[in-house]
Amino acid sequence: MGEFELIRRYFAERAGRRDDVVVGIGDDCALLRPPGGDALLAVSIDTLVEGVHFLPGSDPARIARRLLGAVVSDLAGMGATPAWFTLALTLPAAEPDWLEPFAHALAERAAELGIVLVGGDTTRGQLTLTAQAHGWVAPQRALRRDGARDGDLILVSGTLGDSRGGLQVQQDQAAATESTRFLLDRFFSPEPRIGLAQALAPELHAGIDISDGLLADLGHICAQSGLAAQIELERLPLSPALIDYAGPRRAREWALSGGEDFELCVTAPPAALARCLALAAEQGIALTCIGQMRRGEPRVEVCSEGKPLPVSAHGYDHFGGDR
Amino acid sequence: MGEFELIRRYFAERAGRRDDVVVGIGDDCALLRPPGGDALLAVSIDTLVEGVHFLPGSDPARIARRLLGAVVSDLAGMGATPAWFTLALTLPAAEPDWLEPFAHALAERAAELGIVLVGGDTTRGQLTLTAQAHGWVAPQRALRRDGARDGDLILVSGTLGDSRGGLQVQQDQAAATESTRFLLDRFFSPEPRIGLAQALAPELHAGIDISDGLLADLGHICAQSGLAAQIELERLPLSPALIDYAGPRRAREWALSGGEDFELCVTAPPAALARCLALAAEQGIALTCIGQMRRGEPRVEVCSEGKPLPVSAHGYDHFGGDR
Repeated sequence: MGEFELIRRYFAERAGRRDDVVVGIGDDCALLRPPGGDALLAVSIDTLVEGVHFLPGSDPARIARRLLGAVVSDLAGMGATPAWFTLALTLPAAEPDWLEPFAHALAERAAELGIVLVGGDTTRGQLTLTAQAHGWVAPQRALRRDGARDGDLILVSGTLGDSRGGLQVQQDQAAATESTRFLLDRFFSPEPRIGLAQALAPELHAGIDISDGLLADLGHICAQSGLAAQIELERLPLSPALIDYAGPRRAREWALSGGEDFELCVTAPPAALARCLALAAEQGIALTCIGQMRRGEPRVEVCSEGKPLPVSAHGYDHFGGDR
Repeated sequence: MGEFELIRRYFAERAGRRDDVVVGIGDDCALLRPPGGDALLAVSIDTLVEGVHFLPGSDPARIARRLLGAVVSDLAGMGATPAWFTLALTLPAAEPDWLEPFAHALAERAAELGIVLVGGDTTRGQLTLTAQAHGWVAPQRALRRDGARDGDLILVSGTLGDSRGGLQVQQDQAAATESTRFLLDRFFSPEPRIGLAQALAPELHAGIDISDGLLADLGHICAQSGLAAQIELERLPLSPALIDYAGPRRAREWALSGGEDFELCVTAPPAALARCLALAAEQGIALTCIGQMRRGEPRVEVCSEGKPLPVSAHGYDHFGGDR
């Protein structure tokens, strides 16, 4: 049983209903309507577990940066402006040598992201970190999974697969080179595309942040919009560092399903392409058209040199090993 | 280093500032001001770890009820009305025999509390559950720790020490009796005093829910209000079940410092006492005056038969063992 199936079977179908829940369980980020007030509250919660999401002994400062980058990226994927976060910290012991660099980096990264720590809980146990981010978005500017239309272009920000590459660098205990340093940085310091999402939002029909891998996340847009996505393998944006470290074949595989890149995947009508590219260029962020939304069975079709590829990878899935 | 000291030293002093944070880190519950809108957003996050907060092998339905009761109680202690919650669930494996009763009880308890599950994260690891509750409170109705005044009466709801008694019942593997069943129920199914807090709020100067033990939580009111609290040991409300199981001496000790009773501790001017008692009686909840706030060093003074008691317990503290 995969993570999505687990959530659907045990939790989503039983979740109650309230009129003030605009987007509820099953999305990366909930959208909630406060009493009075115009803006929607966006909330997202993410957990990192030692030995699952990072190797035992990882630098606590890097863990802090990764945790905040990941959870704020969910808000960015909705077009929301982050405001506050909470932290539930489960630690084997209250160890100053761990806490000091962790807390320092957490505060530093929070300041960079414009968010403030407003509460938390500290408990004893296996090193497990849960952060919840809160932000605000105007209802008409919220990026949704269900808004894609037939003919929309599919655009992704930055480069894909780097975070998976950074994980491999750690597993290989690879020597420090320019490429491995870049990939480790992409793994530990994801850069939520907050400003880009907000700038692009008026031009877009749908959007998501890529946390579970392009196939899985674009798959959410397909499922919720009732459309197929056709993408071309050769158009996936890859970093030179990833190609250098992993070779072009693995680089593409990881770009499709590696996960945790925290880049944006959005859809826009062809007429908006030039404007979208210009807005991204203004922010110095690459934006690449990788394919198009089409009528058809709601799934992602990958073509290479004009021919459909059999795709077996379905994006990163925490409970996928049980299948 | 205790939990409060850990939070203060590593996190609270570094937390940034935002004008929209009314009550931030260091309290059980944050109060946040949305853009536009009148009501304040109340958020609270709580973690339960297997082997720390409940025994390995505990009934998953009971864990679900305890988790929601505890986190919603933090909102009740602010006078807020709960609306939504999120769940970060770390599990050793996706085990239907555990998930099914857990998810069933979670949905049932959520419906009873009027809250809806809006999102979450599922990961692999040691069984660890983090819930965050969100609710709303009018600014003038929010119960604060810092509002107590000289001469205020100190009132507590329900009975104290029962949850600690329920823990002991489990540790002792005690036989099922009317008393042990009552104590286990108090441990696993805390009843957040949402309605009582809201009914009393207009009469009160300060309030908190008792999660860390009466001494610790009333101590927060003392510290933040700059006053001493004088309470009388003989006036602590004890359940017959607790006295039966633990004897009167341990019962009083646990009532002072056992923690996790999730009852209310509030302060009100003497003129409001009759009205407070009547409001509580309307809801069928006991409300007991246990002492008075006084000018003096901000700490809790416990008297027995008119004489001050030396108090060594400081409430339950997750990292207290390190001292």
